[in-house]
Amino acid sequence: MAKVAVLGAGSWGTALSIVLADNGHEVRLWSHRPEQVQTINESNRNDRYLDAALPPEIRAYEDMGEAVRGTDAVVIVVPTKAIREVCRKLDDVVDRKTSIVHASKGIEPVTLKRVSQMISEEMRQCTYEDIVVLSGPSHAEEVAMRQPTTVTVASLNEEEARLIQDLFINESFRVYTSTDLLGIEFGGALKNIIALGAGISDGLGYGDNAKAALITRGLAEISRLGTSMGANPLSFLGLSGVGDLIVTCTSTHSRNWRAGNLLGKGNRLDDVLDEMGMVVEGVRTVKAAHQFAIDQNVEMPITSGLYQILFEEKTPKDVVEQLMNRTKREEMDDLAKQLMERYSC
Amino acid sequence: MAKVAVLGAGSWGTALSIVLADNGHEVRLWSHRPEQVQTINESNRNDRYLDAALPPEIRAYEDMGEAVRGTDAVVIVVPTKAIREVCRKLDDVVDRKTSIVHASKGIEPVTLKRVSQMISEEMRQCTYEDIVVLSGPSHAEEVAMRQPTTVTVASLNEEEARLIQDLFINESFRVYTSTDLLGIEFGGALKNIIALGAGISDGLGYGDNAKAALITRGLAEISRLGTSMGANPLSFLGLSGVGDLIVTCTSTHSRNWRAGNLLGKGNRLDDVLDEMGMVVEGVRTVKAAHQFAIDQNVEMPITSGLYQILFEEKTPKDVVEQLMNRTKREEMDDLAKQLMERYSC
Repeated sequence: MAKVAVLGAGSWGTALSIVLADNGHEVRLWSHRPEQVQTINESNRNDRYLDAALPPEIRAYEDMGEAVRGTDAVVIVVPTKAIREVCRKLDDVVDRKTSIVHASKGIEPVTLKRVSQMISEEMRQCTYEDIVVLSGPSHAEEVAMRQPTTVTVASLNEEEARLIQDLFINESFRVYTSTDLLGIEFGGALKNIIALGAGISDGLGYGDNAKAALITRGLAEISRLGTSMGANPLSFLGLSGVGDLIVTCTSTHSRNWRAGNLLGKGNRLDDVLDEMGMVVEGVRTVKAAHQFAIDQNVEMPITSGLYQILFEEKTPKDVVEQLMNRTKREEMDDLAKQLMERYSC
Repeated sequence: MAKVAVLGAGSWGTALSIVLADNGHEVRLWSHRPEQVQTINESNRNDRYLDAALPPEIRAYEDMGEAVRGTDAVVIVVPTKAIREVCRKLDDVVDRKTSIVHASKGIEPVTLKRVSQMISEEMRQCTYEDIVVLSGPSHAEEVAMRQPTTVTVASLNEEEARLIQDLFINESFRVYTSTDLLGIEFGGALKNIIALGAGISDGLGYGDNAKAALITRGLAEISRLGTSMGANPLSFLGLSGVGDLIVTCTSTHSRNWRAGNLLGKGNRLDDVLDEMGMVVEGVRTVKAAHQFAIDQNVEMPITSGLYQILFEEKTPKDVVEQLMNRTKREEMDDLAKQLMERYSC
């Protein structure tokens, strides 16, 4: 059995800790909040984030060095905006042979870096090639209830991906491997754009047909962008693509969906963000993807429409009309061409 | 403006007639039921099937010859089991230069033929290459309300597909073209398997993670099968694949979902079919796909699990356990290999 440190005691970090503990590993759950550490260790619960009894194999730590010392793997599950700071701390205490996994979704504003890129920039003790991402359609609450869940772990280093697969896999948590680090990270991050769009569609009072169209065409343009940047287009057909998209877009619990819904109902972005009182990842991701699309010269009509709603005061109704009245198209032209280029010898 | 006959006055045939009438075409809606023809022509309504006012451009006909005479296109929208009989009648009255479109989803039991194959077998007045299929995520009720909807029309004859795109496209009904007749037909038919599975998952009390896994992995195995039979794998990423799957699997109105839900709750297939009192397309499609998988030597664990539940008295719980405990896998191995074979020169 292994020793694993989980950095970040939010709902997802806690749920992943339960999976690891179920598999018999020693789990050290790090939090920077002393009172949370105390609660977890005294009550074996972390109720503010997850309504579940924690197995005794999970111990909480306030000191990162203590948590990380002698572990076989470190799983980073902090919000994107905390990644760099946590990794700088981690770099001082971690051993070079420890596996580095992250389960955070997002793209850094301005720099447009993915999480694995941020990690490797901040850490001398790990190389980009060995970083593993864990991503897929997974509400933490359902994982805590041991309901069937599937995720993908991806790394350029296939052996590392398999090691992490072995750590997590069990009869209710099925883990697939992939070597497409970029595609799996992109799928998890960019799906927030489409969730925002799905919320807008619902907010406008449109039905299932419109939402299915948005999800499908949104997936096509995310795939186009990802492929142009080097991802395997098939990753977007997988758990971190379609799978995550389905969970996010059909769940009304999603923060991105809720923000979109308010926008669709005619609220202004500033008011929506005020009302939500927290970061809406999809809003930042639209900005990032819009920039990527320009840089890569990739057509992304849905993302561009969302950008106009969010930052250029276009109304959602106008954008929908504009999307429905584009030039007549073949369904698969661009993507197919890219695939053929990619896979031809 | 064109003259178009729509054969079949159910909800989908009626909704497509509305789209055509909105575009200014003369629409002749054929039904074999005299009383339905009378109601439509007297009240401009077809309330038993669709709650909508019908534009006056739609006239109903009982006589197929009268309906079809001099039309530019015939749209066949009858249940799969009526296709052959309707096409035999049609063949006697249709002109060779009339375009033939169908919007029916399903695979014929025993022969395992797709709808376009059945049509071309029954008609001397049309060739397989020119047949067009119209498919995509589309509740008829939403189309009747002019809510945004997207579909794909596919034909081996690209020009025919474009003609039909022109007939249907308007500002709330967006039409894409494709030349992958087989892939688009397969997507529409095979998605019923996954809808049935989604119902079982919900019936077992599982959550969003399990359903997203089922949809994603189900899509992967449908794509594997379709590709092995000559479909373009990208069609399954499109409106007739992912798109239709999302609408069908997340809507609790779907007959397939309801049948699956009852099975998941522990009911026996016979009782479920008795209670539903109608054909459940997904049950027949599981049988067909199971046979295809054997013939093509394609691995389809979800379909095979559903087959065991439906026809071999396995319990849903046992099948889920079996699916979750398969050998550890890479996420994209088979499909990627097939794609590479397909697109390499």
